[in-house]
Amino acid sequence: MQLNKILPLAAVAVLLPTLGIAQDEVAEAANSVETLNAEMVFIFNSLLFLIGGFLVFFMAAGFCMLETGLVRSKNATMQATKNVALFSLAGIAYFIVGFNLMYPLGDWVIEGWLGGVSPTVLEPVGVPFDELDDVEYASIGSDFIFQLMFCAATASIVSGAVAERVKLFPFLIFVVVLTGILYPIQASWSWGEGFLDEMGFSDFAGSSIVHAAGGFAALAGVIVIGSRYGKYGADGKVTVMPGSNLPLATLGMFILWLGWFGFNGGSQLAMGTVSDVADVSRIFANTNTAASGGAVAALILSTILYKKPDLTMVLNGALAGLVSITAEPLTPGLGSATLIGAVGGVIVVLTIPLLDKLKIDDVVGAIPVHGFAGLWGTLAVPLTNSDADFGTQIVGMAAICGFMFVTSFIVFSILKAVMGVRVSDEDQVTGLDKTEMGMEAYPEFSNS
Amino acid sequence: MQLNKILPLAAVAVLLPTLGIAQDEVAEAANSVETLNAEMVFIFNSLLFLIGGFLVFFMAAGFCMLETGLVRSKNATMQATKNVALFSLAGIAYFIVGFNLMYPLGDWVIEGWLGGVSPTVLEPVGVPFDELDDVEYASIGSDFIFQLMFCAATASIVSGAVAERVKLFPFLIFVVVLTGILYPIQASWSWGEGFLDEMGFSDFAGSSIVHAAGGFAALAGVIVIGSRYGKYGADGKVTVMPGSNLPLATLGMFILWLGWFGFNGGSQLAMGTVSDVADVSRIFANTNTAASGGAVAALILSTILYKKPDLTMVLNGALAGLVSITAEPLTPGLGSATLIGAVGGVIVVLTIPLLDKLKIDDVVGAIPVHGFAGLWGTLAVPLTNSDADFGTQIVGMAAICGFMFVTSFIVFSILKAVMGVRVSDEDQVTGLDKTEMGMEAYPEFSNS
Amino acid sequence: MQLNKILPLAAVAVLLPTLGIAQDEVAEAANSVETLNAEMVFIFNSLLFLIGGFLVFFMAAGFCMLETGLVRSKNATMQATKNVALFSLAGIAYFIVGFNLMYPLGDWVIEGWLGGVSPTVLEPVGVPFDELDDVEYASIGSDFIFQLMFCAATASIVSGAVAERVKLFPFLIFVVVLTGILYPIQASWSWGEGFLDEMGFSDFAGSSIVHAAGGFAALAGVIVIGSRYGKYGADGKVTVMPGSNLPLATLGMFILWLGWFGFNGGSQLAMGTVSDVADVSRIFANTNTAASGGAVAALILSTILYKKPDLTMVLNGALAGLVSITAEPLTPGLGSATLIGAVGGVIVVLTIPLLDKLKIDDVVGAIPVHGFAGLWGTLAVPLTNSDADFGTQIVGMAAICGFMFVTSFIVFSILKAVMGVRVSDEDQVTGLDKTEMGMEAYPEFSNS
Repeated sequence: MQLNKILPLAAVAVLLPTLGIAQDEVAEAANSVETLNAEMVFIFNSLLFLIGGFLVFFMAAGFCMLETGLVRSKNATMQATKNVALFSLAGIAYFIVGFNLMYPLGDWVIEGWLGGVSPTVLEPVGVPFDELDDVEYASIGSDFIFQLMFCAATASIVSGAVAERVKLFPFLIFVVVLTGILYPIQASWSWGEGFLDEMGFSDFAGSSIVHAAGGFAALAGVIVIGSRYGKYGADGKVTVMPGSNLPLATLGMFILWLGWFGFNGGSQLAMGTVSDVADVSRIFANTNTAASGGAVAALILSTILYKKPDLTMVLNGALAGLVSITAEPLTPGLGSATLIGAVGGVIVVLTIPLLDKLKIDDVVGAIPVHGFAGLWGTLAVPLTNSDADFGTQIVGMAAICGFMFVTSFIVFSILKAVMGVRVSDEDQVTGLDKTEMGMEAYPEFSNS
Repeated sequence: MQLNKILPLAAVAVLLPTLGIAQDEVAEAANSVETLNAEMVFIFNSLLFLIGGFLVFFMAAGFCMLETGLVRSKNATMQATKNVALFSLAGIAYFIVGFNLMYPLGDWVIEGWLGGVSPTVLEPVGVPFDELDDVEYASIGSDFIFQLMFCAATASIVSGAVAERVKLFPFLIFVVVLTGILYPIQASWSWGEGFLDEMGFSDFAGSSIVHAAGGFAALAGVIVIGSRYGKYGADGKVTVMPGSNLPLATLGMFILWLGWFGFNGGSQLAMGTVSDVADVSRIFANTNTAASGGAVAALILSTILYKKPDLTMVLNGALAGLVSITAEPLTPGLGSATLIGAVGGVIVVLTIPLLDKLKIDDVVGAIPVHGFAGLWGTLAVPLTNSDADFGTQIVGMAAICGFMFVTSFIVFSILKAVMGVRVSDEDQVTGLDKTEMGMEAYPEFSNS
Repeated sequence: MQLNKILPLAAVAVLLPTLGIAQDEVAEAANSVETLNAEMVFIFNSLLFLIGGFLVFFMAAGFCMLETGLVRSKNATMQATKNVALFSLAGIAYFIVGFNLMYPLGDWVIEGWLGGVSPTVLEPVGVPFDELDDVEYASIGSDFIFQLMFCAATASIVSGAVAERVKLFPFLIFVVVLTGILYPIQASWSWGEGFLDEMGFSDFAGSSIVHAAGGFAALAGVIVIGSRYGKYGADGKVTVMPGSNLPLATLGMFILWLGWFGFNGGSQLAMGTVSDVADVSRIFANTNTAASGGAVAALILSTILYKKPDLTMVLNGALAGLVSITAEPLTPGLGSATLIGAVGGVIVVLTIPLLDKLKIDDVVGAIPVHGFAGLWGTLAVPLTNSDADFGTQIVGMAAICGFMFVTSFIVFSILKAVMGVRVSDEDQVTGLDKTEMGMEAYPEFSNS
């Protein structure tokens, strides 16, 4: 409800005094409806973040299942451990540094480029209406929990790409830097009202800011760490290393799809007016149909190219559809949204083998799905949203991906120099579960 | 809140002018409370659909896990692929044709029987209050996303029954026809204000319209496609083909149970008054207890009949309990709801072996769970809801199931004639994952 | 919204009559805003319970996956069956007896100690505003569904500890007693306004009332039933019996973490004011960070102690963090919440081996995670909440855990005497799935 719809009652407040009624009390009367409305808006907005928060939280499980299902069983315990640990560390790093670094609210160290550093402080218990931090927005706690989940997602993206050979603790150190510092800095440029926001860069829910950012951090990691032992032969032969548990990977994809309703829907940032809730509804519908488009396109194209349908391509196609619509899930119609997602699916089918040709060993296809489809989604914004333009989109993409790639490359390189980031070839052959963890994922099943 | 509770303020609007205050402004003042209330109702209703939407969405994952866990490992990749693809295709077919076919809103081609054909158009971005499509209902996008999930569920039901031998692409073509045309047509008869609605047929959330509809489409498919190779011996011997991953199937059942809160709760279609939210709460409680009743009845009966408890019967019993309560989750008390669900569980335990005697090879028990328990649930409505009567319920059940069976039979038969629907016996022995997909679900585990 | 914010409009109602406007109608006018507000609060509160309800429901799936993944594959079907059956039976027992026993609302058999016995009756269909049971709270159905899930959780906790050797039906009889009688009685002492509530015992969402209660019931069960065959050698040697499916266990942990947002967030019991929704938001943030703290602490400590990171410790550490914050998820800041969770993680890493030294065979670590971390969480309340004191907390913990341990011990002992509670050693070697169920969880995979 727009507040100005309450104004008529305020008009009564102006008129009644001529009849001898004390103006203060009548003004308060008008105020009571206005206050009720403001409170309802605040509650709905906070509720949107809470629902979006738990949905996007669950994406951590989705990434974990997807990745654990796509690695070989000898590395599955390690992959699960990495996913639980990265999410846990992200939560702490984002609270201590990340959140306020990402939303400086004017407190920039370098205006528009680098926010300030301080831990997150929530609103006090039982905060009354007139002490709310931002009465027209939502509670700090709800905003924090929602934004944290986006931050953690970037780390989950990296985790899949560098699977099956990265050492646990160096990876987790990278996660702390990524989620505490790197992601928040570049996210502040757009969502913290930094220089990209000033320029008019448009990325509704993070095709670039979350997904391409994660994808390019992953690319840096993959390059520094190197490919898995045995993946690329001297003769240019690529060894297929099939995932050990495709039903689990499928579950992971479905959980991610589920979480994406919160990811994109919650990014409307408001639900307390009919316009906002109708927009959230549009976003739900567009998000779903883009995933459909990506999955169907990947199914058809992979069948045409390889003669047989390929489940992992279909899963990644659906995810690419979701990533593609994330930069602008609101303005497209259902038809455009389906097509935007379908292009994402096509990109994935075409670029996954391309990476192998370049000997870039991305275990789960995270770089195509999040990186390349993320770029496509960002570039597609001006197709349906006249407030965006291609030039600015390209500048934003370059800034975000360039920053994430370079800084991640540096961090991984330092870790490599200081403590090593790569499990030895022998241990890779044995499997990280036995050598690094001493604990098998499926001790009774595996034939290997 | 009933709008007439606002009327007293309107009374002020009538009285004040006698005091010289401009009537327009005071009327607007009264209007502001009325508008606030109307907006809140709209937001709550839309939110119910969005929450219901993501919950029922997740049922796609539930069906996928249930079915993938209940097939043999050599067909698990195929089953996962079918489930992802069918959901994706349903999303597109329902947007292009299904939604408006199901809700003609007066635009019938044949009044009450066949709606019109046009793609779904959502409300514009940032739609203001006075341009909402239906201010007393909910946003189009939220309604669309909720209804789509019901449509997709019918396809998931069929998928489980015809598993392990149906060819992928013919099945997917059937899915497009089912979700774009068949389901919406019969659903329009009841929920689109068609002839069954006129007659007083009562099916709150779709025991018949979704579940029995899916179950009878599945029955047609099973008959046309035939049983799995080796299932029924010439001597009448039935070969048990145990599911490969029962924990995954159990997870699928739990996900479906979770989704059912959205399925039935969302079907209240409103949450913006205390009466509606209390009704949604009743529905949650009844839905849960019916599932309990179905599971416990199946546990006890299967233990009595077979001397040992049977997990797949318990899973299907819980699902049958859920299907049974779906036609009327509101009017029963907790005791009646438990019993209605328990009868569903009994039906499943008794009819699953019956189908085997008839050589109807339903891999996951979808026909008993969704078809038979769906009929029982529909028939049980008059037991607790005096607005329904047995005669009309039977007419509705016959119309829906007859239509779905006959049309599905025709479509499957055409597909059989044109391109074949059944994987060859040899390939069934090898497994669909290797022969049709070239990709194993658990490449490192399977002993077979 | 505090109702007194509406009062100004009531002031108008008092003033206007002096102008000749009928007092009744104007009072009603003021009333209309007040009523609207009251209705919105009721809807939001009920919605909180419904959302919390489905989230905590899903924890049943989380427990099931965690436990099924942590048992050996030869007992996985049994573990899944127990989890589905226990949740189903809890639903029925809690509706017939438990709910009203837990919330006597003044109808005590023994004042403050033992409530009365009657089945749950929901509000009638379409209940109008002025017939609501408690207009300032929430609908009965929403409260019932939310509270039921807490009750069922206690049974899930026991189920994990006694896995791999308890007989199905004796266990299920225990579950009926636990969820229908034992849990509700002790829960009434605190949450049903019984003697612990009178004393000022403070357990926000159930660190003791749910988790330690379940943990100490589990301890009684483990002692009566005895350890698994072969677990403890005569020479004091402990045989490690590794879980068969760690990815599934990881999924279970993530589902539990997800559900905990509803568990703790919903325990605010209100969401219809800005203060309440901001408090729910605080709770979400604190709950998440406590889990992070627990997981990270367990990761680091287990790596230090055992040289290698241990996934099951990390999973249990996260859960212990969640249990620890459950007694007071509102008053801590993010830093304190992280530390409270971290201590929980440390407790788990230190006490899991301790139980083995005492030959207490807790298959999944439920007693340390829920019992010991639950006690820690309860004891930690006064650290951040000045309304609580250590003495009262200790009294409450002793009363709850003592009652649960003793009564559970008695019930298990009676079951042992009457029908036996333990599967024979031979059948344990073969596995419960084959001997008790005749149905394998992974018939095609297992090497054993």
